[in-house]
Amino acid sequence: MDIDSTAQDKARFFAGAWGRLKALPGKLKAKVTSTAKSIKKLGQDDPRRLTHSLKVGLALTLVSLLYYARPIYDGFGVSGMWAVLTVVVVFEFTVGGTLSKSLNRGFATFLAGALGLGADYFASLFGKNGEPIVLGILVFLLAAAATFSRFFPRIKARYDYGVLIFILTFSLVAVSGYRVNELVVLAHQRLSTIIMGGATCMLISIFVCPVWAGEDLHKAIASNLEKLATYLEGFGGVYFQSSESDGMGTGKSFPQGYKSILNSKSSEESLANFARWEPGHGRFRLRHPWKHYLKIGALARQCAYQIEAINGCIGSDHIQGSEEFKGKIEGSCTRMSAECGKTLKALARSMKTMTDPYSSANTHVENSKAAMKDLKLALKAASLENADLAAILPAATVGSILVEIVKCVEKISEAVHELSQLAHFEKETVEPTVSPEKPPQLLHRGIIQPVLDGDSTANDNVVITIHEIISTDSPENGKACDQHQVPKPGQKNRSTVNICC
Amino acid sequence: MDIDSTAQDKARFFAGAWGRLKALPGKLKAKVTSTAKSIKKLGQDDPRRLTHSLKVGLALTLVSLLYYARPIYDGFGVSGMWAVLTVVVVFEFTVGGTLSKSLNRGFATFLAGALGLGADYFASLFGKNGEPIVLGILVFLLAAAATFSRFFPRIKARYDYGVLIFILTFSLVAVSGYRVNELVVLAHQRLSTIIMGGATCMLISIFVCPVWAGEDLHKAIASNLEKLATYLEGFGGVYFQSSESDGMGTGKSFPQGYKSILNSKSSEESLANFARWEPGHGRFRLRHPWKHYLKIGALARQCAYQIEAINGCIGSDHIQGSEEFKGKIEGSCTRMSAECGKTLKALARSMKTMTDPYSSANTHVENSKAAMKDLKLALKAASLENADLAAILPAATVGSILVEIVKCVEKISEAVHELSQLAHFEKETVEPTVSPEKPPQLLHRGIIQPVLDGDSTANDNVVITIHEIISTDSPENGKACDQHQVPKPGQKNRSTVNICC
Repeated sequence: MDIDSTAQDKARFFAGAWGRLKALPGKLKAKVTSTAKSIKKLGQDDPRRLTHSLKVGLALTLVSLLYYARPIYDGFGVSGMWAVLTVVVVFEFTVGGTLSKSLNRGFATFLAGALGLGADYFASLFGKNGEPIVLGILVFLLAAAATFSRFFPRIKARYDYGVLIFILTFSLVAVSGYRVNELVVLAHQRLSTIIMGGATCMLISIFVCPVWAGEDLHKAIASNLEKLATYLEGFGGVYFQSSESDGMGTGKSFPQGYKSILNSKSSEESLANFARWEPGHGRFRLRHPWKHYLKIGALARQCAYQIEAINGCIGSDHIQGSEEFKGKIEGSCTRMSAECGKTLKALARSMKTMTDPYSSANTHVENSKAAMKDLKLALKAASLENADLAAILPAATVGSILVEIVKCVEKISEAVHELSQLAHFEKETVEPTVSPEKPPQLLHRGIIQPVLDGDSTANDNVVITIHEIISTDSPENGKACDQHQVPKPGQKNRSTVNICC
Repeated sequence: MDIDSTAQDKARFFAGAWGRLKALPGKLKAKVTSTAKSIKKLGQDDPRRLTHSLKVGLALTLVSLLYYARPIYDGFGVSGMWAVLTVVVVFEFTVGGTLSKSLNRGFATFLAGALGLGADYFASLFGKNGEPIVLGILVFLLAAAATFSRFFPRIKARYDYGVLIFILTFSLVAVSGYRVNELVVLAHQRLSTIIMGGATCMLISIFVCPVWAGEDLHKAIASNLEKLATYLEGFGGVYFQSSESDGMGTGKSFPQGYKSILNSKSSEESLANFARWEPGHGRFRLRHPWKHYLKIGALARQCAYQIEAINGCIGSDHIQGSEEFKGKIEGSCTRMSAECGKTLKALARSMKTMTDPYSSANTHVENSKAAMKDLKLALKAASLENADLAAILPAATVGSILVEIVKCVEKISEAVHELSQLAHFEKETVEPTVSPEKPPQLLHRGIIQPVLDGDSTANDNVVITIHEIISTDSPENGKACDQHQVPKPGQKNRSTVNICC
């Protein structure tokens, strides 16, 4: 019995081991496949990553020539190593990053080298015994002071690498000066190899498939505006439709792209820092107002925070709002968010084409403001006698935050307009608002506003207020609002009244 | 006349120049003073910055001994340079940063050195002419592949510096192998000097006034919770008081400390990354759940977004809300935000003392939930017949966002509780809820809730609902709520009913 069970155990063990062994190639294959997939995805997400890797390889191979080619080697000796070192450390993804690091490294090496030579001379005045002590004190003081300076935010942002190299070079020169006699020759060799390495990096990064930090920043800000626009344009449809069936079960959901904007500050700041080092390129001049992009970025984040708050309100379970009330504000809210979305789309488009956004965006801003006023009227008009405030609250909050978003979008529009002036964007070719072929599409909806006589609750007297707004002839306007159109060609402005139910 | 005016011009010019010259020392002095002030401020904000600078100076001076002391120099030769280089590049502000860089540098140098030797041997098989070509191809391929691997987020976060040093060392060894014959000796010298430099940095950063990234992260998260708490505790008072006089003119304003939380993600992530490299220290074990802090940090940011939305609503000019309605929700809103603030204070305190926050925070969470229910009842009870919804909206929105904040704070409380279990925080010594000396402070206020019979609007029948909540005996409770207390020593639970007006 005992032997039997041991034999069985053994058999089971071997079977298990064999099973694991058989599974191993499969697991390995799966692992390799998943890694290969993630590599492929990384490359497809941004093909410039692949180019960048090849560029680094190219720069390193070029610099290695310093070693391989005998005539060059005889000139530089072991100092050729510094060229390799420079290439590896200095080559960054963007042109601005590479330039910033190369120039920082070059100037810091030069400055610290000169200072180190001076320190060596000064220390030599103290005789053979005093020299190492004086040098030690100098290295200590300078390293401590320079390290402390790295905590200054302005130095940290632009010259951090330079200060690091300054400490490095000063210590090396001061310390090795005590041993190496041909210090000036060495310093010269080292500086020239660093310049060669840095120049190789700069040339390759500028002329071989350049990745401009400034262009990236420009695109990132425009794409952030687009993400906000996508959310806002779709918002009305999803939110008010989903309420008709219960909950959020319509299958449609809110695009979550805007979430990436919430934490975009640090990447935008580093791009702006790099962009300042870049020469003029493409449509960007040398002194392009990069700092102004940060302002637009901050406003876009502000808008994203508001959207996040809306998302929180919608996502929470306390929403069992009154459908009746929701219906009342649906029109104006949908238009507010849609017009905000259109404004942002227009701004993003104008940034991409580098044209002044004023005329195209401004119409939408005005429309969204008009919708905001309509919302206020709708709120005033809403009869609240039998209503339960707790049921009204969720939708009312959404409306209230949308009002904030309208204000934020207006600020963004102003900031982009300001940018277009600072950066001399082209003036937009204004399209005529009325073309003879198609009748003007009119935007306005009036709202019946009950006039409350002081405290009386008489709902009998109603006054119809009609605002007049001239619409642009964008074809989208017609789709978004389902107002009664009274197309009479030839007449320019017309107000259509339709009653919010 | 002509001569006269020229003379006058001259006199004026000299007077102006003299004025500027006289002003120069003043300006210079002002500049120096302002710089000195900003240096002083930088040091006072965080005195560890000064210590860090001195530590870097110390490490560099120690490593310089390699050069100065002849017996050591004879052992290492010029390779001593690598020790200096290592110290400058590797010494970071936090222990975790220094360890991460030192270990990355050490292992990468070892691995790349070995691989470089192998590449050299492999290339030498191709003869004198083939060798540089083969080496060039190898350097190109390896540098490109390694550079590409730096784009993987996981590698970027933890091993970025290691990969950089890997490329650097491999290129140096492979390239210089072609020239230097005693490559193994050189590699050995280089590795040992790097280890000496790295070890110096590690020892100094661990044993001389260490700055632990983990502790910083722990404190940063706790202080973020405190900032939120400060806002929320003060919120009710400032918001509802300011409405009584017009606008925000009471002189009180909302604390803006929470704004720094909005963009805290990147710094928290880098601290968590560094903390993982640190050995156990103080109250933190080796495998402290650092990742969990990021979860709490994300929730705190979520809460900060909501506060930002509230701030937007309050700050905008469309607030001319109905004072009457504001008065109705004042009680429950003030309590909601105050209890949320107390919850967060309790959580921050428990993080600082590393005790389980469950019992202390939970009472406040329950209180805030009760206040949330009260708000709903108050909203249901509010008579809306003569009210203007547009005037109600601002205050209602604030209430609605506060409800979201309550939920968010509850999640934070759960997350901190989870952390306390993962990190084995001490159990709190639960203080007795009733001490014989002082009567129990009772927290509750009931709210009159009109019962609506179906659709009828009869407001005649009222039912008084009384919730029973046992308060902790924290002395703050009594101050924050001004309910009628019925102190009868000896009785444990009592409900006081006071009617919200």
